[in-house]
Amino acid sequence: MSGRVPSEHEVIGYVKTLSNWGRWGAEDELGTINLITPAKRAAAARLVRDGVAVTGARPIVTDITPDTTFQFMRFMVDSGEGRDTASPERLQARRGAGEFIGMVFHGYTVTHIDTPAHFFWEGKIYNGRSCNLITSREGATVEAVELLHDGVVSRGVLLDVARTRGVRWLGPGEGVMPEDLEAAERATGVRVEAGDILVVRTGYYARRLAEGPVSPLRAGSPGPHAALLPWLKDRGVAVWGSDTHNDVTPTPYPGMGSPFHIGALVGLGLWLIDNMNLEDIATACAARGRWEFLLTLAPLRLRNVTGSPLNPIALF
Amino acid sequence: MSGRVPSEHEVIGYVKTLSNWGRWGAEDELGTINLITPAKRAAAARLVRDGVAVTGARPIVTDITPDTTFQFMRFMVDSGEGRDTASPERLQARRGAGEFIGMVFHGYTVTHIDTPAHFFWEGKIYNGRSCNLITSREGATVEAVELLHDGVVSRGVLLDVARTRGVRWLGPGEGVMPEDLEAAERATGVRVEAGDILVVRTGYYARRLAEGPVSPLRAGSPGPHAALLPWLKDRGVAVWGSDTHNDVTPTPYPGMGSPFHIGALVGLGLWLIDNMNLEDIATACAARGRWEFLLTLAPLRLRNVTGSPLNPIALF
Amino acid sequence: MSGRVPSEHEVIGYVKTLSNWGRWGAEDELGTINLITPAKRAAAARLVRDGVAVTGARPIVTDITPDTTFQFMRFMVDSGEGRDTASPERLQARRGAGEFIGMVFHGYTVTHIDTPAHFFWEGKIYNGRSCNLITSREGATVEAVELLHDGVVSRGVLLDVARTRGVRWLGPGEGVMPEDLEAAERATGVRVEAGDILVVRTGYYARRLAEGPVSPLRAGSPGPHAALLPWLKDRGVAVWGSDTHNDVTPTPYPGMGSPFHIGALVGLGLWLIDNMNLEDIATACAARGRWEFLLTLAPLRLRNVTGSPLNPIALF
Amino acid sequence: MSGRVPSEHEVIGYVKTLSNWGRWGAEDELGTINLITPAKRAAAARLVRDGVAVTGARPIVTDITPDTTFQFMRFMVDSGEGRDTASPERLQARRGAGEFIGMVFHGYTVTHIDTPAHFFWEGKIYNGRSCNLITSREGATVEAVELLHDGVVSRGVLLDVARTRGVRWLGPGEGVMPEDLEAAERATGVRVEAGDILVVRTGYYARRLAEGPVSPLRAGSPGPHAALLPWLKDRGVAVWGSDTHNDVTPTPYPGMGSPFHIGALVGLGLWLIDNMNLEDIATACAARGRWEFLLTLAPLRLRNVTGSPLNPIALF
Repeated sequence: MSGRVPSEHEVIGYVKTLSNWGRWGAEDELGTINLITPAKRAAAARLVRDGVAVTGARPIVTDITPDTTFQFMRFMVDSGEGRDTASPERLQARRGAGEFIGMVFHGYTVTHIDTPAHFFWEGKIYNGRSCNLITSREGATVEAVELLHDGVVSRGVLLDVARTRGVRWLGPGEGVMPEDLEAAERATGVRVEAGDILVVRTGYYARRLAEGPVSPLRAGSPGPHAALLPWLKDRGVAVWGSDTHNDVTPTPYPGMGSPFHIGALVGLGLWLIDNMNLEDIATACAARGRWEFLLTLAPLRLRNVTGSPLNPIALF
Repeated sequence: MSGRVPSEHEVIGYVKTLSNWGRWGAEDELGTINLITPAKRAAAARLVRDGVAVTGARPIVTDITPDTTFQFMRFMVDSGEGRDTASPERLQARRGAGEFIGMVFHGYTVTHIDTPAHFFWEGKIYNGRSCNLITSREGATVEAVELLHDGVVSRGVLLDVARTRGVRWLGPGEGVMPEDLEAAERATGVRVEAGDILVVRTGYYARRLAEGPVSPLRAGSPGPHAALLPWLKDRGVAVWGSDTHNDVTPTPYPGMGSPFHIGALVGLGLWLIDNMNLEDIATACAARGRWEFLLTLAPLRLRNVTGSPLNPIALF
Repeated sequence: MSGRVPSEHEVIGYVKTLSNWGRWGAEDELGTINLITPAKRAAAARLVRDGVAVTGARPIVTDITPDTTFQFMRFMVDSGEGRDTASPERLQARRGAGEFIGMVFHGYTVTHIDTPAHFFWEGKIYNGRSCNLITSREGATVEAVELLHDGVVSRGVLLDVARTRGVRWLGPGEGVMPEDLEAAERATGVRVEAGDILVVRTGYYARRLAEGPVSPLRAGSPGPHAALLPWLKDRGVAVWGSDTHNDVTPTPYPGMGSPFHIGALVGLGLWLIDNMNLEDIATACAARGRWEFLLTLAPLRLRNVTGSPLNPIALF
Repeated sequence: MSGRVPSEHEVIGYVKTLSNWGRWGAEDELGTINLITPAKRAAAARLVRDGVAVTGARPIVTDITPDTTFQFMRFMVDSGEGRDTASPERLQARRGAGEFIGMVFHGYTVTHIDTPAHFFWEGKIYNGRSCNLITSREGATVEAVELLHDGVVSRGVLLDVARTRGVRWLGPGEGVMPEDLEAAERATGVRVEAGDILVVRTGYYARRLAEGPVSPLRAGSPGPHAALLPWLKDRGVAVWGSDTHNDVTPTPYPGMGSPFHIGALVGLGLWLIDNMNLEDIATACAARGRWEFLLTLAPLRLRNVTGSPLNPIALF
């Protein structure tokens, strides 16, 4: 890529120079979700042609893999075993199965959305609130995922950076740059516009499927480069998603650590979808030669929570 | 209601007389989801007019209420408290908040979808499989929610039975009957057709909001009457949802206990959405005089699980 | 009781006036556990006569009751159902049952020990450390229950205040006073000495068994009065336990809230056992006319945790 | 070892040939715990000399290691961070820290006791009950750990097989044989007798400490050989514990899989302590040249559970 790589000083400055604090009022918690209007949603619905629906999520499994930080748990509260042979009285009372599920969806494996409250910088979260509002007892008392109770519905745009670069996947430490997005735009004819949900494919999940899971902390991972942040603000992206955990690893900016997360969540109030599976959507797009679709995000209505596991549904 | 109420013998017989076993092949696990075609989805998308999105889910909260069977859990794995004043080194390492969430979504409070594997009858689940396939170790090895990885997108139809009856809500033990659904159809001009996601409002959740939670086991609850099952098969409903736990309580058919669940899940392979919040959707429908909309269900891709918490999103 | 009730000013001052900070060195985390010497343990073992062992714990159950704050969870990871009739191959692989257990042991129902890190006052925990050392990510990085890896073994002394007062149980808001303890000493001939584990019966758990659970926050509860703190320091009590949650409710000292917890844990470094079942131990003591015994506390070796569920075992 | 190794046929037969079914009555659930009498406990207490207490448990940590099957969870429900600087009003309300803990204690890392209900053979658990009594809904409705509400207190005897063999640890696949126990008895002068809690050191945990954790399923592990079962019955051992997961891995008896667990739990009703840390107890024994001590097991009073995490406390 030929684009200029910003200095650490510049990147750290993005929290202020790109700030959306106050843009939608002092009380705002929605950030870039404000960019999605009813007209935008209605237009997105008009993109639907053949009625094929495709997932943007990975399966959620109990396996411990090198990229597990917290194990997903599924425990039965009732099962069907032996219910075919038990006495009639017993069968009468026992005709259902169910389970407990438990997870820390943040991490490197579960597809999920981050609210702005998921990260702070210099003691502040998006719109200048104190990080003290995210408490160990009550959780995220502001900027929580319940704000999205009516879902996020908009035009989804896929930019397939791996495809555009002509590689199976980006390698560890490789960042998606503005030039990548523009090259993908040129290659496909789609153009990212205000209120879009932009999903970007690096092939990182394809590699996980092909070669097995690795720890991103030890093995590194591709991800969106902090250099994208001005571009995303300029275009008015409402939600960013990718098939990575959404920061280049190891970080090119050790003074900030997770510059994409911090710049996006804290500075722009830009919500993020981590750990997507974009294989099926990419296949569907390529087959149609169309890189836009109706995209529905339906986060769980979890009170005071900094995100939600998610199954983004693209409708073509 | 003037409609004939079926005998217990008839209702128990529904598992066989209304059976969809084999209808979509011996290997089928999807049941009535098969009734949703791409053309159906595309047509549903064409219903979108003004681009307003509305939730069909209740909030998920940690409170213990009389209708709690298992408490929803939210515990922080990191918080923001004190991160504004700590030393620079410490702040460097600590810039994010996150949480564990855990739940048994089956029950009376969380909006969720049931897979056919959630109930059995005489040792069988939908399509004649043994209930032994739902094990205490592996969970639902068949007919699990992961089948819906691409979501469920179709026309949603709201029939507001409470509104049609002219009451705030149906009372304990009151069943929604075929006559109710047909009266609502006549009142609104909408007609339930093959592949629809039918959501039916009894006002039960409105009552919970107005009067506070009660235990449905002790206080009773309205719900879909088993007499609906022939009607639902006849119309080709793909998914049923309501603002109740989807069986009249106390049960009118003690020999079966949960006849709507068993007839629907086991006999028809008809997936159910329990514990919906239909207040916002009903308001949106009434305001527009339109009782149909694009409805997107995006269950989590939970492996081997008998359902998923859900936030159904209606798009008008 | 005729004893003087200290003013709120005095009680708040106890954190300093009774302070054990520095008494066992600046690095100390054990607090009053330091008072238990090998000689004390050996002497306690010599109290054993007839070899009868008795629990000091309540059962841990999944029920939601009015005194539940967090539900105890037990979910099977494998069960025995149907393992008598399955195919030989399947039986081969499935011959065990097990479960997940989860709990917040602090609260009003589970018998547990509190470490000094469980409470803070003016930003400090026992021995003057910052409460910032109890983090939302790492937990209790100091003064955690793992310090008790070798258990706590000492002379246990039961003072049965309800029995001494001649009542079935103390009522809501009633505090155990120094005079109560001294009256019980006089009545039984036992005298509390340095290094003892003192367990005090108010009858509160007997009342729960007799009348059913109530919320201590709504209904009130008896408990140790803050006036005990000078007495406990004077006698050199190593661990305090009672059949209450260990603070009078509603609090007589609204400026401090939980004065017994704060004075004991923060000021004295005195570890507490909450929510004991002293019914069986009281019966065993009364039957023998002996109010001392070998008492073993075996907390789980939970890393960075502010306490542990506990089953104290008295050996007579 | 020169002892005869029993055939698979013999070992499978142990469930019947060594059976304690009916020995303590048809209703019995305690199995070999019946061998501990008050006199035995009183005699054990008389072994105490110097009053030193030592743990037999490993720490319980959140790390995922190669021997993790289910991750131990610790999540804060309240922490101390920022409680030193917050406003007085806020400090008033927030003066405590606590956490949720959750675990599947069965496995390869947590020190725990197994009840007889943990394993079945040919559809039966100890004393001939049906394994159907261990249900996915209610858990262990019989032979659950709550039976041990008064703890298990008896003479503990340590036989240090690694020390007697003159090795740091036994290797993968190596079984502890009767000859090992008798050699350790001869070397130390102690003799295992009826009602003892026998704890046997193979050095497996020492190796984990020295070389780091490995998966016993992939790397193998030492353990008690099924050949011990007749010896254990003959001597009247009440509880067996070791620093392994208590079956040789890979199994020498593929037709049974876990022959020590099955023979002990199902046939003898002999309770097992898995995954002990015997390093500290072995050091304490060697220092004193005494291999017997008062041993207290204080399982949590978990209702309907097939075991409990445990911190066995030896008192010398």
